[in-house]
Amino acid sequence: MKLLVSTLFFALGSLHAQDPLPSWNDNAPKKAIIAFVEKVTKEGSPDFVLPNERIATFDNDGTLWAEQPIYFQFAFAIDRVKALAPQHPEWKTKEPFASFLRGDIKAALAGGEKGLLEMMAATHTGMTVEEFSKIVMDWITTAKHPKTGRLYTEMVYQPMIELLAYLRTNGFKTFIVSGGGIEFMRPWTEKVYGIPPEQVVGSSGKLKFEMRDGKPVLVKLPEVQFVDDKQGKPIGIETFIGRRPIAAFGNSDGDQQMLEWTQGDGGARLMMLVHHTDAEREWAYDRKSSIGKLDKAWDEAVAKGWTVVSMKDDWATIFPPTK
Amino acid sequence: MKLLVSTLFFALGSLHAQDPLPSWNDNAPKKAIIAFVEKVTKEGSPDFVLPNERIATFDNDGTLWAEQPIYFQFAFAIDRVKALAPQHPEWKTKEPFASFLRGDIKAALAGGEKGLLEMMAATHTGMTVEEFSKIVMDWITTAKHPKTGRLYTEMVYQPMIELLAYLRTNGFKTFIVSGGGIEFMRPWTEKVYGIPPEQVVGSSGKLKFEMRDGKPVLVKLPEVQFVDDKQGKPIGIETFIGRRPIAAFGNSDGDQQMLEWTQGDGGARLMMLVHHTDAEREWAYDRKSSIGKLDKAWDEAVAKGWTVVSMKDDWATIFPPTK
Repeated sequence: MKLLVSTLFFALGSLHAQDPLPSWNDNAPKKAIIAFVEKVTKEGSPDFVLPNERIATFDNDGTLWAEQPIYFQFAFAIDRVKALAPQHPEWKTKEPFASFLRGDIKAALAGGEKGLLEMMAATHTGMTVEEFSKIVMDWITTAKHPKTGRLYTEMVYQPMIELLAYLRTNGFKTFIVSGGGIEFMRPWTEKVYGIPPEQVVGSSGKLKFEMRDGKPVLVKLPEVQFVDDKQGKPIGIETFIGRRPIAAFGNSDGDQQMLEWTQGDGGARLMMLVHHTDAEREWAYDRKSSIGKLDKAWDEAVAKGWTVVSMKDDWATIFPPTK
Repeated sequence: MKLLVSTLFFALGSLHAQDPLPSWNDNAPKKAIIAFVEKVTKEGSPDFVLPNERIATFDNDGTLWAEQPIYFQFAFAIDRVKALAPQHPEWKTKEPFASFLRGDIKAALAGGEKGLLEMMAATHTGMTVEEFSKIVMDWITTAKHPKTGRLYTEMVYQPMIELLAYLRTNGFKTFIVSGGGIEFMRPWTEKVYGIPPEQVVGSSGKLKFEMRDGKPVLVKLPEVQFVDDKQGKPIGIETFIGRRPIAAFGNSDGDQQMLEWTQGDGGARLMMLVHHTDAEREWAYDRKSSIGKLDKAWDEAVAKGWTVVSMKDDWATIFPPTK
């Protein structure tokens, strides 16, 4: 009997190991992913795509990791305001800094975009790219999410981690195409997602090259170079990658144009939206949300046959186990 | 005796096959390349670099392919002016177009930068990225160099093709970082250099995303997005790649900052300049040339110990055999 149980366990273990997407329930989205991958990788098939053209692009916030109650990069910026406050006594009375320092995010946001851009500039520019990278790494390896108490990098979606690996196993090159800051993501995406810095497309600021004591540095300037959101996503894809994806994954209206661009030239294509439907294990939000609003892109998904993933129904697991 | 000769031939063949850089004479530059690669790939060595950090960047014009008597992209633009002239009767009297149409490049250039930018806009923008890509491919597969009669892609440097392959065999990821237009290079770099579009960094124009008859297109606009030259090269590297190269190859003052940036953070690094010294097999030019001027970067190469390749002395072959 003991032997039988062991054998059974072993057999189940093997079966499990053979499923490349164990955190996906056996519903339509999982089937769509597998059918698509089998189609484009089958030599001789009319849908076969050469490995070097298997480009897959992923939004980050709300698609690969969570984005509530505020974008994680924004939480980083607030923590930076607090850390830098001693060097900026004027912030005690200057908005939006004063509100952030009091912990009143709502009041800080009420001041509008100009103040927020000022706050982003104060926390994201004026240092070299190496200094900024170190600041990001110090934060991302220690800061905890206010609701879950997890590190932010432990709030990535386990099913998407499996999907990234599954695509790469099948010869895909996986890219991030995010509205988030390129220099905020690159220090950790390789370790967390297996996506190297050169495959991260995002929003960026202008840089300045200069010599300091005979040593070259690149200084982050408070001017926007490129905004990688909405129409900016296909533009970012064309500028940074130079090939059109055959698969694209997003979760909000900011990803609509990326999915349109992916679908646009025919052939076997996979367009997928992650729908945040799980108030218990994650968050539930869509049309009315100020963060990760999914409204027009959802309508288009229905009209054009894009795959919509319900986190509640289609994902067996949301976050990876903590270490 | 016949057997002996065969054996000898076979042995020589094997030896030849083992030399990864057969078109490089056995001089200092070849030795520097091999010593560098062996150093950074030897596990346990203090200079060992992980494969994913083995980034090598190459200028294109004058480094991977020739650039005389005019930059090849400029030859393309002139051919486009001629092709488009029937649709632009006004060009017959409008400079610099009129001079280009008469074949008087010198007069056309004399008009200064504004006219040339207008000419670049007229030939490089206003169409979709796919239309432009097709125009480039039509040209690059048919246009011949005025001096050699070769296709432009047959005027790549055989020693550099071998160097690219040698680096990749040793786990390097090879990138182009060129002042040339990103969309002019990407259609053919994979076939010619083994460098895929997503590893081509270059100058770029702004793009516009729009729907045409329900189909998304990206239209090339006559506005500059990024100039990837001089200080722009380390900035382009940081923005597009996000990692600092450990090896960089150029040929002119436009590459100086890229090589400085590569050398800047210590460790085993390879900085190399191709010096055009071969008036017979290619061209000889440096400090006084209006194209590919090598002046300040040469001085810095001497001062900082960068490797300078003399095409005449160090390269056994310049161009690959034609097919």
